[in-house]
Amino acid sequence: MPKVAADISTSLDGFVAGPNDGPDNGLGDGGDRLHQWLYDLGSWRERHGLEGGEAGRDAEVLEEAFATTGAIVLGKRMFDNARGWGEEPPFHMPVFVLTHDTRDPLEKDGGTTFTFVEGIENAVEQARAAAGDQDVSIGGGASVIQQCIGAGLLDELQIHLVPVLLGGGVLLFGPNTRPAELECTRVIDSPAVTHLRFRVAT
Amino acid sequence: MPKVAADISTSLDGFVAGPNDGPDNGLGDGGDRLHQWLYDLGSWRERHGLEGGEAGRDAEVLEEAFATTGAIVLGKRMFDNARGWGEEPPFHMPVFVLTHDTRDPLEKDGGTTFTFVEGIENAVEQARAAAGDQDVSIGGGASVIQQCIGAGLLDELQIHLVPVLLGGGVLLFGPNTRPAELECTRVIDSPAVTHLRFRVAT
Repeated sequence: MPKVAADISTSLDGFVAGPNDGPDNGLGDGGDRLHQWLYDLGSWRERHGLEGGEAGRDAEVLEEAFATTGAIVLGKRMFDNARGWGEEPPFHMPVFVLTHDTRDPLEKDGGTTFTFVEGIENAVEQARAAAGDQDVSIGGGASVIQQCIGAGLLDELQIHLVPVLLGGGVLLFGPNTRPAELECTRVIDSPAVTHLRFRVAT
Repeated sequence: MPKVAADISTSLDGFVAGPNDGPDNGLGDGGDRLHQWLYDLGSWRERHGLEGGEAGRDAEVLEEAFATTGAIVLGKRMFDNARGWGEEPPFHMPVFVLTHDTRDPLEKDGGTTFTFVEGIENAVEQARAAAGDQDVSIGGGASVIQQCIGAGLLDELQIHLVPVLLGGGVLLFGPNTRPAELECTRVIDSPAVTHLRFRVAT
């Protein structure tokens, strides 16, 4: 059965974005550091319409996530901070944006459609239907992943742990996190980042 | 040259103790879960005067830490919460307790001496002298490790990452953490816990 999986880069002190994130500062102060491991990878560049790039374990982990994902759920804050990812977003698949302020779907170039949906159960259900026999990826941000765990909807969590202390910003797990027992199912490490995969008890 | 290294178990959401920690609840509510990976290990049991126990990767990681450590620095809150570890503490070496409220040293059975010291630089300096050509271990709690990083005194940090979400308690890294670039130098994973070792830029 297809799974619902979250994939997110965090600092060692648990932040997914630096302080002062907003539409002019998408990842917050210093938050860009969390995604540095991605930018030179061939599999990342290909998604963004760029040629070349590095192979290796990090590229394979990313490629695997791309290959198995059929639809994405992400939060409105993330959508706003990225300004809707311009004319041709790097997703190339249906994306469901969690928001209280629903509106008409947005069709972009390259196969990405943004559908604005209220309620995490509703968003995941629609994403499951759109993904067919592929997985649903919970793209973030932190609040959406927390809601997903809280509602018992998350099957798998993969954290890309970056060896940096940001000292502030947006925490992946906040005080509203539901206590849970997880199972570490895979660890892949490279010099740049450690990929930790967990099965989430639901 | 001997190093100053911190070794601590944390939950996936970054807690080193559960909520409501205190002298009657040393590790806080649910915090005992963070140390469960230790209790059945032969190397842990030996330190606590018990026979038998498990071998394997987790036991080796622990044995390595014991073998290279010549003195320990830890915080007064940790000392109080453990009620001084009774008549024969499991350290069997000099321990320096960081406190504003200094008092005479306490000599316990089995080779553990507690010396009460003010100031992190002072504590680490005295521990270095006591350790000779062995390493100094920063035993915690969170505040002592943060102070050590903030003062540029920590060479190495090893986190034993336990696949559980506690949802609250004492965070290893709080809002006073100094931003820093680290280097992940070793990853050892077992079904129970992932041991992540970092070089800390000082």
